Amino acid sequence: MAPINTRFSVGLHVVAALGYHYAGGGMTSDQIAQSVNADPSSVRRVLSGLAKAGIVTSRRGHRGACRLSRDPVHISLLEVYRACEPPAAVAVHDYPAVADCPVSSNIKGSLAFVLGRAQASFDDSLARTSVAHLVDDIRDRGA
Amino acid sequence: MAPINTRFSVGLHVVAALGYHYAGGGMTSDQIAQSVNADPSSVRRVLSGLAKAGIVTSRRGHRGACRLSRDPVHISLLEVYRACEPPAAVAVHDYPAVADCPVSSNIKGSLAFVLGRAQASFDDSLARTSVAHLVDDIRDRGA
Repeated sequence: MAPINTRFSVGLHVVAALGYHYAGGGMTSDQIAQSVNADPSSVRRVLSGLAKAGIVTSRRGHRGACRLSRDPVHISLLEVYRACEPPAAVAVHDYPAVADCPVSSNIKGSLAFVLGRAQASFDDSLARTSVAHLVDDIRDRGA
Repeated sequence: MAPINTRFSVGLHVVAALGYHYAGGGMTSDQIAQSVNADPSSVRRVLSGLAKAGIVTSRRGHRGACRLSRDPVHISLLEVYRACEPPAAVAVHDYPAVADCPVSSNIKGSLAFVLGRAQASFDDSLARTSVAHLVDDIRDRGA
């Protein structure tokens, strides 16, 4: 299985490959796994999350192919991020509060606020980038 | 040991406790561990990272106390984040590129760019918040 914080980059690889071939007839999960060069079970796990989130559709059967469910211009990287069910970038610790310590009693709300704001900045950056942007960048690098 | 993505929130708890008591005589690492309510070895590990980064100073010996090395107004949460040596929020996968696949051959540069930008937004949010802000927020919640 892909390490937990690289699962998103596998997800991005999958949608980039499907976005690159969007005008074609779709790709099988084996073809996608070949592009990622990862074991097919890792890729299937990510594909299943993308399908559940409505980003990818797949036709069952021998010639079953996966496709993006809509134009890559209309899929943000934040949607892909959430579909990959990543852990929060940082999390509030869960040690119990000490009642007579003013810092311990009040810090969790403060931490949730500060860390939530940082996570929101991270999410906003992904929301502003589409799968089409990613595919264009890949084409530019290959040119 | 604290789970890897909560180590930063333990670090924030430590600097918040030291910031709260900044005008006093400092705190021993046992007093800090009591506030976090975590095992002292986790807290010492975080304290050691904060000391190495020049955020905390400690005096050795029986009455040795830890203090912030400067006014909490001048310590950003980004400094604390880096001192806690967190893993990147997301990382580029390291599956080898497939030479004849244009996506596989070019995606790592694109991923590093996109993920680096998201991480930078996360970092910027932390850079704009100081330990003093955190302490003020804790005081407000306790009021």
